[in-house]
Amino acid sequence: MALSARNQLRGTVKSIVLGSVMAEVVVDVAGFEVVAAITRHSVEALHLKAGDEVAAVIKATEVMIMK
Amino acid sequence: MALSARNQLRGTVKSIVLGSVMAEVVVDVAGFEVVAAITRHSVEALHLKAGDEVAAVIKATEVMIMK
Amino acid sequence: MALSARNQLRGTVKSIVLGSVMAEVVVDVAGFEVVAAITRHSVEALHLKAGDEVAAVIKATEVMIMK
Amino acid sequence: MALSARNQLRGTVKSIVLGSVMAEVVVDVAGFEVVAAITRHSVEALHLKAGDEVAAVIKATEVMIMK
Amino acid sequence: MALSARNQLRGTVKSIVLGSVMAEVVVDVAGFEVVAAITRHSVEALHLKAGDEVAAVIKATEVMIMK
Amino acid sequence: MALSARNQLRGTVKSIVLGSVMAEVVVDVAGFEVVAAITRHSVEALHLKAGDEVAAVIKATEVMIMK
Repeated sequence: MALSARNQLRGTVKSIVLGSVMAEVVVDVAGFEVVAAITRHSVEALHLKAGDEVAAVIKATEVMIMK
Repeated sequence: MALSARNQLRGTVKSIVLGSVMAEVVVDVAGFEVVAAITRHSVEALHLKAGDEVAAVIKATEVMIMK
Repeated sequence: MALSARNQLRGTVKSIVLGSVMAEVVVDVAGFEVVAAITRHSVEALHLKAGDEVAAVIKATEVMIMK
Repeated sequence: MALSARNQLRGTVKSIVLGSVMAEVVVDVAGFEVVAAITRHSVEALHLKAGDEVAAVIKATEVMIMK
Repeated sequence: MALSARNQLRGTVKSIVLGSVMAEVVVDVAGFEVVAAITRHSVEALHLKAGDEVAAVIKATEVMIMK
Repeated sequence: MALSARNQLRGTVKSIVLGSVMAEVVVDVAGFEVVAAITRHSVEALHLKAGDEVAAVIKATEVMIMK
């Protein structure tokens, strides 16, 4: 299945910090870091761990431009 | 000033499509495209145009992980 | 592939309104309507049309509670 | 008062997990689960508990389509 | 009913620009402007017009800090 | 540098609650409170503390209207 989200950046999970509700996942994308704050439940449901091949997915309406 | 948003990806504006309220800005970041849907007013206020050096800025809570 | 977004509601596309940059997609999910504002480009890339079987996907951090 | 958010799904609170800052609220909506990550403070301010009749509220710009 | 969104800033609608799908609503809140990009449909459903007493509502997870 | 986010409300940090992953920052803006849920990491990276002069920054697509 395909997702409408315009930004899907492939990379590798570098580190994960688990809180009780939220988790922070750092993904290495072509040498720079992309950080995701998702629920801890999602980390567990996807069995996410350092080294996993993933994509960081971002809806276009969530992206700002700094100039 | 520094912004709390964890993701600030530097790149170059590749194209802009203007609607009456919204605008779509495509940024080339290290060879891949990042797409932003921002207000037309912001495009005009920043005088955004193709070729501009910018950063695509994304709050960590807006990033999902696909595995 | 699996997505970290916790909410994935299956339904059928009921109607689509296209703007120049954005589009509004109404999905019938078990008899009630879910409305998505996505880019027109995504509607075209997914070849979305009324009657399509889809899922409305929502990150948990975007859901509020009204009581 | 009425809210501009297009998606207001009525249901019943099924479970709540409290973290120190965030909380996860699962709502049963017509037999399927909708998950919200809101602040712990909001859970306390609304006196949310399992069994409460609520609505899960989502702005249309936060909804993606998967096909 | 009460909403979990932590930020509810009362003000007066100053101007509205309608696109085909989206609309931009500027609200005067205690002398400064808050801008909302909502669907055109919501503007029509709420019969929003300049001069209306409203609240600009923002979920805490959508607020960033610049220092 | 300038940011496309339309809402940048200047104020003073009133309080901070730190969780393991997320943090809640309350900003006093002209006498009313604006609440931000950002990552703990961002609070530490910005050395945020009560009394700091900051701006609460919000993308227009994240603002709803209640009437």
